[in-house]
This record gives sequence, structure tokens and C-alpha cells, in this order.
Amino acid sequence: MLQSQTVPASFHIEATAGKARAGRLVTPHGEIETPVFMPVGTLASVKGVPQETLEELGAQIILGNTYHLYLRPGVETVRRMGGLHGFMAWPRAILTDSGGFQVFSLNELRKVSEEGVTFRSHLDGSPHFFSPESATEAQIGLGADIIMAFDECTEYPADRGRVRASMELTQRWAERCKRYFEEHKKEGLWQKSGQSSVASGRRPAGSEAIEQPGNGPVDHRPPATGHCQSLFGIVQGGMDRELRKESAERTIAIGFQGYAIGGLSVGEPRALTREIVESTLEHLPEDKPRYLMGVGTPEEIVEYASQGVDMMDCVLPTRAARHGLLFTSEGKVSIKQARYAQDQNPPDPNCGCRVCQRYSRAYLRHLYASNEMLAQVLNSIHNLSFYLDTMRRVRHSISLGEVRLSF
Amino acid sequence: MLQSQTVPASFHIEATAGKARAGRLVTPHGEIETPVFMPVGTLASVKGVPQETLEELGAQIILGNTYHLYLRPGVETVRRMGGLHGFMAWPRAILTDSGGFQVFSLNELRKVSEEGVTFRSHLDGSPHFFSPESATEAQIGLGADIIMAFDECTEYPADRGRVRASMELTQRWAERCKRYFEEHKKEGLWQKSGQSSVASGRRPAGSEAIEQPGNGPVDHRPPATGHCQSLFGIVQGGMDRELRKESAERTIAIGFQGYAIGGLSVGEPRALTREIVESTLEHLPEDKPRYLMGVGTPEEIVEYASQGVDMMDCVLPTRAARHGLLFTSEGKVSIKQARYAQDQNPPDPNCGCRVCQRYSRAYLRHLYASNEMLAQVLNSIHNLSFYLDTMRRVRHSISLGEVRLSF
Repeated sequence: MLQSQTVPASFHIEATAGKARAGRLVTPHGEIETPVFMPVGTLASVKGVPQETLEELGAQIILGNTYHLYLRPGVETVRRMGGLHGFMAWPRAILTDSGGFQVFSLNELRKVSEEGVTFRSHLDGSPHFFSPESATEAQIGLGADIIMAFDECTEYPADRGRVRASMELTQRWAERCKRYFEEHKKEGLWQKSGQSSVASGRRPAGSEAIEQPGNGPVDHRPPATGHCQSLFGIVQGGMDRELRKESAERTIAIGFQGYAIGGLSVGEPRALTREIVESTLEHLPEDKPRYLMGVGTPEEIVEYASQGVDMMDCVLPTRAARHGLLFTSEGKVSIKQARYAQDQNPPDPNCGCRVCQRYSRAYLRHLYASNEMLAQVLNSIHNLSFYLDTMRRVRHSISLGEVRLSF
Repeated sequence: MLQSQTVPASFHIEATAGKARAGRLVTPHGEIETPVFMPVGTLASVKGVPQETLEELGAQIILGNTYHLYLRPGVETVRRMGGLHGFMAWPRAILTDSGGFQVFSLNELRKVSEEGVTFRSHLDGSPHFFSPESATEAQIGLGADIIMAFDECTEYPADRGRVRASMELTQRWAERCKRYFEEHKKEGLWQKSGQSSVASGRRPAGSEAIEQPGNGPVDHRPPATGHCQSLFGIVQGGMDRELRKESAERTIAIGFQGYAIGGLSVGEPRALTREIVESTLEHLPEDKPRYLMGVGTPEEIVEYASQGVDMMDCVLPTRAARHGLLFTSEGKVSIKQARYAQDQNPPDPNCGCRVCQRYSRAYLRHLYASNEMLAQVLNSIHNLSFYLDTMRRVRHSISLGEVRLSF
């Protein structure tokens, strides 16, 4: 039993089409069909969208940001509330980033050393320190199904010497993350299935884990199948194909349950992003999930899936929604425009989501123009539905062996 | 057939307990069990709450504000989109106020004359004019099931001469509203059931009106039962019991399908509000619905129902929710307080709403402290659920003949 508690997520490829793969990632909180798009819930909430709606939309895994959760409400609070699953009442899978990219985004507020990163909170300027060990410890406390190594995201542009030095630092940090994780992974909350007293306060004692979306108390602990958290490594190397290859090989040598491509979408031209993704993918193992961090538009997630990426996340669907931009089967719709003021059509005539089935463009335009909160809620639901539907179509195409994935 | 189109809402009392009544108000868009609480959807949206959630909560009728809708998106736009029902995709009953109270709230931006009120938009300062006729015309265009006479809401405090003059003006305006309504009520949109081409663009031609919450297109036109809009009169008279009595008698003499008590909650002590409500109710007919405008706390809506009020509305549940105040069976919970940071209990342990069934106080506190939009959404859903449940309990008590209604 104790041994079985150290089984990480498993991954199986079920179909391929060219370089694209349709797979199944088994996590302690459910199976994930890949390629998968992961909605971003930075502060333990996908902005404006209740968890029961995310379930209805078919979201299989969502993302949380360690940097933000570390600052608010704090790792210890989340841990005491049953980890992220218990705290936010989300029974399906969760992935947390390591905070590396978030800290990178702080620019002047951070200072990098061999040991880790000193940074100041964007909230109150208070000083903090993240190391590979502390970032991994925080993620064990948050209790996501998949956690990420703490890396340095190299700025763009950067000269080759700087990119190599940064990549080397990420490799040393990756080793430290792996070591810390192996020594401490059994301290995770929900790994102690069937024994832990930390869970939703409303779960009847001794009850089995049953997923009951929107209908009665939800037990957020995984069934006692002996799974534990999985640690993914992150490949860096800037925009240099050789350094990316070296980073991939060295990260694989350390050994992780999955491999992410980090350090992209940091200001470089989109064609360069594609080139680096494509070349880096060639060096990643076939039998492990491949996660491209922080992309992209609907067209891009289809393209990256066709290149062999299994997992993606992006704030774009929800952030764009809050600014009145809808993604539809007919292209982008800027719902704030006056041309939609009397448009009785649904946002997307080919979409089956609850927003498109009920509301008109005229109504969504009115909500946006009137600063009604419901605008952001409904726009976010539709955009997430569009992204998740897009990925479902991609998976279906791959399972049919279609090499050219259409958007 | 033409004659049947002029049948207004009908009202039947099914049980009484002391002064309290349990009734049934039949509108073109469904039956309403009274006493009823009406959530406020000022701009054709109950702030932060999707219409499908309002249906799930059991809201039978919601309120829209003519003043706000007249400014944005404009009456003609709403009319072309199938009236408020079609525009906001709400198949159940709607009541619109006349704009009288809203214009009163503008203070320095308004000027009252015998003809009507000149006022400036709170949005852009543009000049506008509401008369009894134009306010009624606007409400016919918006197409709510129940519309209100255009009144002058008397300021508080005011001397007796001022209150009498204001009440007399309201009476003259009430006569003009009634006259205009009788002459124009057949011009309403959905009165032409089975013939109108103005309806949801997604309704299959010739289909019957079927309510399908959250599942496929909704037809927002009423079934062809021959109903039309109902016009309610408003009793004014400030804090003077004699003037209230006179206003009630003169309003009844004009003849409306229901009677509202307006001009309260304008700054007077709450005990005085109660006294005026109680005395005014004595002068209203037993067989017509009685609507107390703009109240109140959960305790107050129970008390007013026990006095014989049939309909109430208030922004309090949603406004308080946006400020982190929850109404619960154990009293008010200010969810922003640090004491709830690790409280795993649901917001209200005795509440069956989707929020209380799923989320903890700790999570709601975190969402509020982190300025997450979901805080406002979930708090609003719970507070509305609490108000609507409270009214359901009150109705049940009345049907059992319980004179003392408990909160």
C-alpha cells in the first residue's frame, strides 16, 4: 500500500496522425484525454466561471498559479482546507506552475542567484524568496495532480552566452526540484487516501469519493488508487535550437513524468515560436506528455496539437472575454461594436454552449456596453467552450487518423 | 380573439393567515405564487447571475428599470429584439418600474412640471423628458408583463402642503397613465400571440412556446392565451396616513390591476415605514395584488408579507453580495472578515443552494479578498436563493394558516 502511493500519473497514446497524438493521461483526479486545453484559474478561480460550469463545459484539468496562491491565501491555508481540490471544490485534475514564469514577469522586482529568486510581492512590495526546493514544497502543499519544476524563464532577446547560462541554471534547478520532490512527495495531502482527515468539511466520514457535480457535497480526495503527484520538467534554451536540444536531453536525463516547453511567448515573433516548438518536440520522448506552456489562439492550439503537443494552457480565452472579444467558428467577434446592437444571432451559430443556445449578440453587446458583470461571465463561458470544443474536435480528428487538422 | 388579447393578469387568493395572503398571480409569462420576491435586473440583467441560474433558483418574476433601459440600450432596440423577454432571453414574468423613482433619485438633474419631468442622463448629461404618457409608452415598448404608473416620489422630509401637492400630481399623472395605457395597450409586442414576427431569432417558425431552461432555443413569447400587459397604480402621500388613505382611494377609483405603495425607504426611520405600510394596506382592495416597492431585509420582507403585502423587490440581496455581505439562516455573514479565512463550513449550513452545497466560507472569503469576480457571482446566487427560499417558507406558512410568520 505504501509503495502504491508513489505511482505518478500514467500516459498512454491511443492514436496518432502524423506527428499528432491522441492520448490518455491518468491522474489521481481523473483521466484526461489529450491533446487537452487547460483553463487558467490563477487564484483558484477561472475568472468569473463557477466550478460547476467548468464541469459542464467538460474541462478535465485546470491550472493554478503557485506565485499568486503563495501570496493569497497562502500555501498553508490551502493545505489546511484540503489542498487546492478541497479549497476550491474542484474534484477533477489540477496543474500548478512553479512560479518561475510569474516571478520572471515581475521584472525589476526580482533578483536571481544560484540559490533561487528574491522578489517583491506585486501586492504590497513585501520581500519573498523562491528556490527550487521552496517552490516544490509550496506545490506539494497546494496538492495539484501535476506540479512543475522551478525554472528560469530566459528573457527575449538575449545573447547566446546569456541563454546558455540561464539554461544551465534551469538544469541545476531541475535536479534540485527532482531531488526535493522524491524526498518529500509522500508528504502530500491526498496521497494518504482513505486515511487523511483533511478534506471537505461536508464529506460524510468514511464515504467514498464520488463526483457529484452540482448535486450535494463533493469529496475532493482521489479514490484510493495509490496515485501521487507528478513532477514535470521544463525545457528552456531561448530561441536557440541547439540549446533547446541540449536542455531537452539533460532534462530527460534527470527524469520527469512529463516535459514542458517553457520560455516561449515572451515577445518573440510567432513564426520563431513555432520553429522552436517544432524543433524541441523532436527531442522529447514519445511516451511522456508534452506540455507547451502559455499558448495560444484557437488556430495556434490546433497547430501545436498537430505538431505533437499534448497539453496547453492560456489566459487568452478568459482575458479576451473580459475585453469583449469572442472566439467563434466564424472568426473573432468584438462584441463591443455597435454593429451588433440589434443582431439577434447567437455569438456563434455553430456553438452548442449554454450562452450560444440562449443569448443573442445584441444582448451580449448591451451587457458589455453597460459594464454589466454578466458580460464577462457569459463571454468567458463561451470562449472556454470554444477552446474546449476545438480540442475535442482535434482529438476526434487524430483518432480518425487525419493528418491535416483543420481549425 | 381580438377581445381576448386585452385580458390582464388575474389574481386569486388561495389562503390567508391573519392579514397575510397566499395568492396566485397569472401573467402572460407564467403563474407567480405570492407573496413573491422579485430580483432586480436594472439593465436587463440581475447583476452577475445568468438567467438559467435565476430559473434554477425559482425566480418567478424579475424587475427591470425603465429609466436605465430607456438610456441603454434604448426602448426601440429592446422592442425590436422581441421586448425584454426576447432581448434578455427570460421566458418568465417581468415587471418594469415607470422611471418615476429613478428620476427622483437624480436630485439636481431633474425638474418637475405638470406635464412631466425634465432630467439629465446620469451617463452623459444629455437632456430627456418623461411624462405619464411617454413613460407608459416606453413600458409598452419594453413589453413587461406588469408595468407601473408614472408617479412623483415625494422627498423626505416634506411638509404637509408639499406632500399633498405631490400626491395630487401623482393622482393626475395616474389618470393620464391609465388613459394612455387603455388607448395603446394593444400596440404591445407579444400581445399579438401567434401572429407576431418579432421574437427570438432562433425560434423555429410556427413552433409553440415551450420553456426549455438551458436546453435549446427558448421562445420568449407567451402562449396564445389572450393576455396583455397589466398596469399597476402607485399610492403616494409621504408619511401622512390621511394623505395615504386619500391617495389609495383615488388611485383605486381610477382602477388598476394592482396597487403599489411607493415613496417609502427614502430616508425615513424604519418604524415609520412599517406604520405607513400597515395603515396604507388597510385601504387597498383585498382582491388585487399589493406591491411594496423597494424593500427590504430578509426580516422585513417576512414582516411585510405577514401584513398582507403580495409583491416586493429590492437590490439588497445582490448589492450586499457584491460587498461581501451574505444573508443566512444564522444571520448576516460578512464574508470579507479574516475569521472566515480557514472556515470550512458552507456560507449557510441550512441552505440547499448550489453555492452552499459546494463552496466553503474560506473559499468565498479568499475570492472576495482577491477581488475575484466569482466572489460577486457566488455571493449573489446565495443571497437571491436565501430571499427566494424565505418567501417560499412564508407562502408555506400562510397556506398552513400560521398567523405568526417566523423568519
